[in-house]
Amino acid sequence: MITTIAFDADDTLWHTERIFINTKDKYKSLLSEFHDGDWIERHLDETETNNIKHFGYGIKGFTLSMIETACELSEGRITGDKIKEIIGFAKEMLAAPIDVLEGVRETIEELSRNYRLMVITKGDLLDQEAKLARSGLGDFFDAFEIVPRKDAKIYKYVMRRHKIPAEEFLMVGNSLKSDILPVLEAGAQAVFVPYETEWFHERVSPEELEGKNFGRVESMSELTTWIKKNQAG
Amino acid sequence: MITTIAFDADDTLWHTERIFINTKDKYKSLLSEFHDGDWIERHLDETETNNIKHFGYGIKGFTLSMIETACELSEGRITGDKIKEIIGFAKEMLAAPIDVLEGVRETIEELSRNYRLMVITKGDLLDQEAKLARSGLGDFFDAFEIVPRKDAKIYKYVMRRHKIPAEEFLMVGNSLKSDILPVLEAGAQAVFVPYETEWFHERVSPEELEGKNFGRVESMSELTTWIKKNQAG
Repeated sequence: MITTIAFDADDTLWHTERIFINTKDKYKSLLSEFHDGDWIERHLDETETNNIKHFGYGIKGFTLSMIETACELSEGRITGDKIKEIIGFAKEMLAAPIDVLEGVRETIEELSRNYRLMVITKGDLLDQEAKLARSGLGDFFDAFEIVPRKDAKIYKYVMRRHKIPAEEFLMVGNSLKSDILPVLEAGAQAVFVPYETEWFHERVSPEELEGKNFGRVESMSELTTWIKKNQAG
Repeated sequence: MITTIAFDADDTLWHTERIFINTKDKYKSLLSEFHDGDWIERHLDETETNNIKHFGYGIKGFTLSMIETACELSEGRITGDKIKEIIGFAKEMLAAPIDVLEGVRETIEELSRNYRLMVITKGDLLDQEAKLARSGLGDFFDAFEIVPRKDAKIYKYVMRRHKIPAEEFLMVGNSLKSDILPVLEAGAQAVFVPYETEWFHERVSPEELEGKNFGRVESMSELTTWIKKNQAG
């Protein structure tokens, strides 16, 4: 029944949140003369949330939010050298080696023999393309879609574009809000693979999950078994 | 013979360079206590060129380059308030009204009756999608492709993806380097529409143009006539 399996990329195929968490730690040390870590993180999260409408998702927007927050919480006393260090964080993040999650390579390789595989991800085209290339997983995927949002309309558009009937489409990802709920709404199936941390932009309430029918595996290594079981049933 | 006409977006359909030029003027005033305008502009261009490998094209990367340059040329003496002003420039640029070039709307509307129209553009997905929506031109286009680079391989990929034979494909744009030469290399046709200024990243030498066969019109208003003439011949 399923012919196409699509994967989210960040924190589904490879670690991303870790890079942000490491950078936030360095950022908090850099600004420790002005405020304590929790205070800095809370303000950074707030600035980031406000700036998503301007800057979208991705490392460059995050960096502009780090710089803005640094100017604000130092009341303008931040030095140019520290700002340059923050820009350096961005360059490091963009160049960070891709850390593929455990079990991903084997699972993707095996599934690619029997299914058409796709990546569907938000974020900056240039960043994401570079990450796919550096992950060494690029050859297993037939299509790579960078989307501005992940809602039911976008998933329908991607399925239409690739001529995939909704009943043949399965999405796999670590975000209930972006990878699971809108896919169900678009009439397709979804499997949730929780990541070690949950991104604060992506939280959903228990009410939103009520009556929703989707799969769940604890790691990518269990995905093949889940698919076999559910294809047979 | 031609069935599909693809257009570059920035400075082909709408003004973009103007927004950058205005922002650079504000940036030079902001930093006038440190250096004169020419010196600032030269250093900004240099930083931008070095940073393209990290940040790609687009407003966010340009802003990070403005901030980096400000830290450098003030030798770290730049204040947080001025940095915040630069981040404000980014938000203004991202929200700037779309200024469609003269003759574009009429030409696109007319051509959309007889041809399949596409946009092929570099840049940030979120920015470009928002600009197309705000331009009011979105409905005339059948496809919108955001590409990481504009080389012959990418053009071939786009044509393959949309099942367009190269001999039926015409690209229109203001950059010889990105919109004309790689399209000819991919076996398709191209029409050059020069913009009022030329972006320094996009210059090509006269040698690269030798023996190259492409059209040229002085403004988008002349495009329909050019196509009629060249389709008939």
